[in-house]
Amino acid sequence: MFFGSDNTGPAHPQIMQALAEANTGYAAPYGADPLMEEVRTRIRDIFEAPEAAVYLVATGTAANSLGLACLCPPTHTVFCTPNAHINVDECNAPEFYSGGAKLTLVGEHDKMTPETLRRAVEGEGNRGVHGPQRGPVSITQATEMGQTYTVAEITALSAVAREFGLPVQMDGARFANALVAANCTPAEMTWRAGVDVLSFGGTKNGCIGVEAVILFDPARAWEFELRRKRAAHLFSKHRYLSAQMAAYLRDDLWLSSARAANANMTRLAEGLRPLPEARFRVDPAVNIAFLDLPRRRLRALKEAGAVFNVWAGSLEDGPEDEMLLTRLVTDWSLPEAEIDRFLSLFAD
Amino acid sequence: MFFGSDNTGPAHPQIMQALAEANTGYAAPYGADPLMEEVRTRIRDIFEAPEAAVYLVATGTAANSLGLACLCPPTHTVFCTPNAHINVDECNAPEFYSGGAKLTLVGEHDKMTPETLRRAVEGEGNRGVHGPQRGPVSITQATEMGQTYTVAEITALSAVAREFGLPVQMDGARFANALVAANCTPAEMTWRAGVDVLSFGGTKNGCIGVEAVILFDPARAWEFELRRKRAAHLFSKHRYLSAQMAAYLRDDLWLSSARAANANMTRLAEGLRPLPEARFRVDPAVNIAFLDLPRRRLRALKEAGAVFNVWAGSLEDGPEDEMLLTRLVTDWSLPEAEIDRFLSLFAD
Amino acid sequence: MFFGSDNTGPAHPQIMQALAEANTGYAAPYGADPLMEEVRTRIRDIFEAPEAAVYLVATGTAANSLGLACLCPPTHTVFCTPNAHINVDECNAPEFYSGGAKLTLVGEHDKMTPETLRRAVEGEGNRGVHGPQRGPVSITQATEMGQTYTVAEITALSAVAREFGLPVQMDGARFANALVAANCTPAEMTWRAGVDVLSFGGTKNGCIGVEAVILFDPARAWEFELRRKRAAHLFSKHRYLSAQMAAYLRDDLWLSSARAANANMTRLAEGLRPLPEARFRVDPAVNIAFLDLPRRRLRALKEAGAVFNVWAGSLEDGPEDEMLLTRLVTDWSLPEAEIDRFLSLFAD
Amino acid sequence: MFFGSDNTGPAHPQIMQALAEANTGYAAPYGADPLMEEVRTRIRDIFEAPEAAVYLVATGTAANSLGLACLCPPTHTVFCTPNAHINVDECNAPEFYSGGAKLTLVGEHDKMTPETLRRAVEGEGNRGVHGPQRGPVSITQATEMGQTYTVAEITALSAVAREFGLPVQMDGARFANALVAANCTPAEMTWRAGVDVLSFGGTKNGCIGVEAVILFDPARAWEFELRRKRAAHLFSKHRYLSAQMAAYLRDDLWLSSARAANANMTRLAEGLRPLPEARFRVDPAVNIAFLDLPRRRLRALKEAGAVFNVWAGSLEDGPEDEMLLTRLVTDWSLPEAEIDRFLSLFAD
Repeated sequence: MFFGSDNTGPAHPQIMQALAEANTGYAAPYGADPLMEEVRTRIRDIFEAPEAAVYLVATGTAANSLGLACLCPPTHTVFCTPNAHINVDECNAPEFYSGGAKLTLVGEHDKMTPETLRRAVEGEGNRGVHGPQRGPVSITQATEMGQTYTVAEITALSAVAREFGLPVQMDGARFANALVAANCTPAEMTWRAGVDVLSFGGTKNGCIGVEAVILFDPARAWEFELRRKRAAHLFSKHRYLSAQMAAYLRDDLWLSSARAANANMTRLAEGLRPLPEARFRVDPAVNIAFLDLPRRRLRALKEAGAVFNVWAGSLEDGPEDEMLLTRLVTDWSLPEAEIDRFLSLFAD
Repeated sequence: MFFGSDNTGPAHPQIMQALAEANTGYAAPYGADPLMEEVRTRIRDIFEAPEAAVYLVATGTAANSLGLACLCPPTHTVFCTPNAHINVDECNAPEFYSGGAKLTLVGEHDKMTPETLRRAVEGEGNRGVHGPQRGPVSITQATEMGQTYTVAEITALSAVAREFGLPVQMDGARFANALVAANCTPAEMTWRAGVDVLSFGGTKNGCIGVEAVILFDPARAWEFELRRKRAAHLFSKHRYLSAQMAAYLRDDLWLSSARAANANMTRLAEGLRPLPEARFRVDPAVNIAFLDLPRRRLRALKEAGAVFNVWAGSLEDGPEDEMLLTRLVTDWSLPEAEIDRFLSLFAD
Repeated sequence: MFFGSDNTGPAHPQIMQALAEANTGYAAPYGADPLMEEVRTRIRDIFEAPEAAVYLVATGTAANSLGLACLCPPTHTVFCTPNAHINVDECNAPEFYSGGAKLTLVGEHDKMTPETLRRAVEGEGNRGVHGPQRGPVSITQATEMGQTYTVAEITALSAVAREFGLPVQMDGARFANALVAANCTPAEMTWRAGVDVLSFGGTKNGCIGVEAVILFDPARAWEFELRRKRAAHLFSKHRYLSAQMAAYLRDDLWLSSARAANANMTRLAEGLRPLPEARFRVDPAVNIAFLDLPRRRLRALKEAGAVFNVWAGSLEDGPEDEMLLTRLVTDWSLPEAEIDRFLSLFAD
Repeated sequence: MFFGSDNTGPAHPQIMQALAEANTGYAAPYGADPLMEEVRTRIRDIFEAPEAAVYLVATGTAANSLGLACLCPPTHTVFCTPNAHINVDECNAPEFYSGGAKLTLVGEHDKMTPETLRRAVEGEGNRGVHGPQRGPVSITQATEMGQTYTVAEITALSAVAREFGLPVQMDGARFANALVAANCTPAEMTWRAGVDVLSFGGTKNGCIGVEAVILFDPARAWEFELRRKRAAHLFSKHRYLSAQMAAYLRDDLWLSSARAANANMTRLAEGLRPLPEARFRVDPAVNIAFLDLPRRRLRALKEAGAVFNVWAGSLEDGPEDEMLLTRLVTDWSLPEAEIDRFLSLFAD
C-alpha cells in the first residue's frame, strides 16, 4: 500500500533488461554511444522536432536547473508558481546553476493563469537596472498537485511570455502523465504551444534515473553541453543513461507506464470520492491526489501499513477528527489489489 | 584491443546482478534506503573510520567538486598539480561548486612534492586580503599519469598542509588501483596519512556510475548534504547508487577488479618494455601508461583496430618516425588475449 | 522643489570640508588610514559596542549584500518583506554575493510582524534537505515606505529569529532618520534588540557615498574583509571614505541632518494633510511619504517644476481625477521655502 | 620620501575643485547626471570611438572584473600573466564576477608574448567539453612591473587572440602612464590594436577613486549595466564619480599627471642607475621600478623615513649584504626634492 511518491517504486523490467543488454563490450563515453543516437532520433520523431537538441541527465533537478540556466542570465528572474518544484524542492539549485538569478512567484495557486502571470511579469518590469530583469516562465506539467494545463492554457501563458519577449521552460517530470491525460500530441503540448525547453522526465515513470532536456531551438546546445559538464552531470559511462531512455521510448513504454499510473489513481479516487470523510482539494488529473482526511483515519491507515505523506499538520498531535491535507501518489507498479486493500480500510 | 580509457568498458556482472536484485518493491528515496546503510557501515569498516560521513554521487567530478566546496571558501584557492583532473578535465566545476575559488598549480609534474607544495603555498600567502587565501591541498591517487603516492609521500604532503592549517582532499577516482599497488590499508593511505576528504571511485573500476565521498571528520556532513542536493546530485531512486557501491564492496570486488586492471597493464608493459621503439615516460604503477611511440607504429595499430589516445601531437600529420606521446589504459575487463594480440602487432 | 529622492541632493558642506582636509600627503591605503581608526572608535562608542567590527563601503547595496553574505550560506534563504530594497532594488545583488541564496518574502506589507515572520519561517522549514534552509531575517529601518520599527517591534522580530536560531540583519540606509524619530539609543535600536549586523547609511543623509557595516559579533570580521575585497569594494584610497564617515559622526552631523530631513517631511505633511485631495497611505515617520494625489494635480505640480516619483500608474495617460500613488522624499538640504512653494501650488 | 605606491598620495587639486563644484543642487542619480554626459563625450573623442559605451566605477578591481565578466562565460578561462593584478591582487574577484571562470597563466614573466600566449591558448583547447573553454586575453598596460607593450606588441597579441576568436581586455589602471611613455594615440593603443574592453584608470593618477570601463563595441552595454548594478557598483550619487573623471580629462590633466609621475621615476632611476649596489631588473618604462638593493641599504633608507615595498625577502632577517627585490613607485605628487633627498642617502 505505497502511496508515498513515484520516486520510490522499482524500475520497469524493460528498463532493467535494456541496461543488461547495454552492458556488453566497449562504448564511447560522454554521450557518444550509439544508444544516444537512437534516443536523439526517437525524441525528435516523437516531438516532430528534427532540429531539437536532446541531452540526458540523471535527476529532474539537474534537468530543470540546466535548462533554466541556459535561458536566465544571473541578473534576471524566473516566473513560477509558489509550489513549483524549482522553488520549494531544489534547495536553491536554479539560483546556483544560473549564478544567482531570482524566482518570482506567480499567483498563489498550483497553476498560473495568464492573468497572474501578467501581473507578476508587469510587477518586475518598471525599475530599469534596479530590479531583476524579466526572465523565463517555468510551467510544471503535470503540476505538483496533480493538475494539468490544457494546450490552450499553455498557449495562453506562452502568449503572455512572448508579449514580453520571455522564453518558456516546462518542468515535465511527469510529462508523460500529463500527455496521456490529454488528447494531443507531444508537439502540441510543447513547442507548438510556445515551450522552448522541456525537462522530459523518466525517473518518476519507471526508469532508474534519467531525464531528457529538449531544447527545441538548438542555438544554446553547446552552452548546455558546457553547463552540464561543469555541473558534473555529464556521465562518462553515458550508455546506461541512454539505455534507460531508449527503452523508455521503445514500444511506447513511457505512455503505457503513465497510463497505468494514472489509471491507478482513477481507481483510487473513484473509491475515495464517495466517502464523506475524504475531501479532495481538486480532482486528480494524473497520478497525484491532494485531499483532506481525518487524523483518526490517517493513523489507522498508517498502522495498517499504508505509506503516504501528510502534507500539512502532524499525524501525531491534534484532535482525532481534525482534517489533514494528505498527498497520495500512485505509480505504474502499484498493484490494483493494493489499492483495493487500501480502500477497504475505510470500511469501518 | 581497447586501451582508450577505463570509463568505456562494461560494468562488472556482480554490479549488474546487484542492480537487478535491488529492483524489487518500494525503497525509501534520497539515501534512506537500507542498502545505503550497508554501504555506510562497510566503508566505515574498510577505512577503520567509525565516525566518517559517507555519501554517494554518480560522477567523479561531482565527488571532487562537492568535497572541495566543503573545504574551500570562495575567497580561497585549491592547491593541485597542473594536470590534475580538477584542473584540466572538469570544465571549471570546482570553481562553480565553490562559488568562484581559484586553483593554484603546484610544480610542473604529475606528482607534487613537499617542496613544490610548500613553494606554491608560500607563494599564495603574503598579500593579506588581496590575494586568494590558502585553501585545501588536492592530491590525485593514483595520479592522472598512472603514478601513485606512497603513504610516506602522502604523509609528507599532509604535513606541509597541516603546517599552514590547510585540509587535504584526495581524488581517488582510481583509489582501488593505487591501494592494490601498495602494501598498506585504506586507513593508512588516507586519514592516517592526513587526508580529510576522499573521493572513492567506483565508476572506472567496474561500476556503472557511482562514487563515494568520505568525510573522515563528519563536522561538515550536513553542509555536504545541502550542497549535494543544491547541485542536483541527490538521487531520488538512490537505491540504484547504493546497490552498485554495496556490490562493489562485497567480496572485495573493488580490490579484485583493480588487481585485474593493474595486472593487465603489467602484462602490457612487460611486452612493450623490451621494444626499442616504445619509450615509457615513467613506469606505470597502476593501469595507465604514458609512452612515446613512432607515428608509423601508432597508425598501424589503429588500422589493426586498436583504440588508444594520442596525448600530444597528431596521428595524421607529421614524419613517420616522429615519436608521439600516447596513453594506454587497461581496465579490469580487458581479455589477456587482446593484450597479446596488441603486442603481436609490434612484431613486424 | 525636489522631492524625488534622498540620493540626489548635494553633500553636506562639512563632508566636503573633511574631504578637502583629508587630501594632504600620503595615507596608508585599504583602510589602514588614521581616519578609519577614528571612525571605528567613534562607531563603537556610539553603539556601546567595543568589540564590534566596523567596515566602510561606498554603496548601500554593497553594505547589505556583504553583510547578508556573511550570514547566509548559498543553500539558505533570507527573510524580508516584499518591498525590501534587497528584494526589489538591488538587481539580485544579495543572490550574487551569497552565491545563490534565496529571498523568502514575509507578509504583504512594508513592515513584517512577528506573526508574518513566524509564518514565513515555518513555511521554509519542513522539507529537510529539499527546500532552502532558514537563513537571516532582514529588517529595513526606516522602511522603504517611510515607517519605523519600535524597539519593542525589533525585539519581538528578533525573538522569533532567535527561536529558530536565525541571525538578524538591519538595512539601515536611513538608520539616522529612524533613530531621531524614536526615543532610544543606537544600541537599543540594534544589538540590544537582537540585531547582529547593521548597514549604517551615510549616503542618503548628506554624504557623497559611504556606508558602514557593523558586525556586533566580530567573529566573521575576516570573512567580511575577504568578501569585501573579492567584491571589489575595498578602496585603495580609503581615506576618502573614512573622511566622509568621520565628518558624518563628528558633532552629531548624522543626527542633525536626519532631524532636518524628517522636519522637512513634517512641514510638508502638515501642509498636505488637511487637503481633501491628498490621501496619505500611512503617516510618514521619517522623510518619506506615500500618498495618493489626483493625476491632474500631479501634472500641474510637475509643470511647475516639482520633482517626485509616481509610484504606480502613469502620469500621462488616464482620467484627470484618478488618484495615483506618489512618493515624496525630503532630504536635509531641502529649503523650507521650497516646501512652502510646493504647498502653495495646491491653492488653486 | 614616499615610494610605496601610487594609491596612497593625495588627489590632484583640480579633482578636489571639481568635486566641490559638482556639489550644488540636485543631480539625477545613477549615471544620469550631466557631468557623465560630458565624460562620455570626452572619452569617445579621446579614443576616436563615437560608438563606445562608457561607464564609471570606483575601483580598478571592479573595472576589470565587470569588463571581463561581460567577455567570459563561467565555463571559460581568461588568459593573463602570472603576476597580473587580476590573478594575484583581486582575491578571486574575476572568478566571482564571472560566476566561476578560470584564469590560465601565460608564460612566466611580466609581459606575455605572441608565443607564450599561443602556447597557453593551444594548451586549453583540445579537450572538448572537458576543459575550460578559451576566453578573453587580458593585457595589463602598463604592466605590474612597470613595463609597457608597444602598439606592435599589442597588435601581435590581439592577432593571436583573433585567430582563436577571443576578445581582448586591457587592464589600464596605469593606462595614462603607458600612453605618455609611447608615441601614439589612445585609439592606436587600444581598439585599433585589437582591444575590445579597456579599464581606464583614474585612481592611481590623481583621482580619489574612479575608473572608466570602455566597451569599444557597445553590444554588451546593457549587460554591463546590469552586472554593475548587481555588483553594487552603480553609485546613486554618481555625479561625484563623473566630476572626478571629467576633471581628469579636462585640460589633459590625466596626461600631465602621468607625465609627472613618469618623470619622477626617470629622475629617480637616473640617480640610482650609476650606483653599483642598485641593480634594476628591467629599465622602468613608467612610474614603477623593480630593483635589487642590499638589505643594509634598505634598512638605512627606511630608518631615514623612506617608504617602499620589499617585494621578496625580509628586511629584518638575513645577511647585511643580501640583495632584496624592491619596488619603488613614484606618483605625480612626489616633490623632486624628496627624490633628491632619497638619492642623497646613498652617498655614504
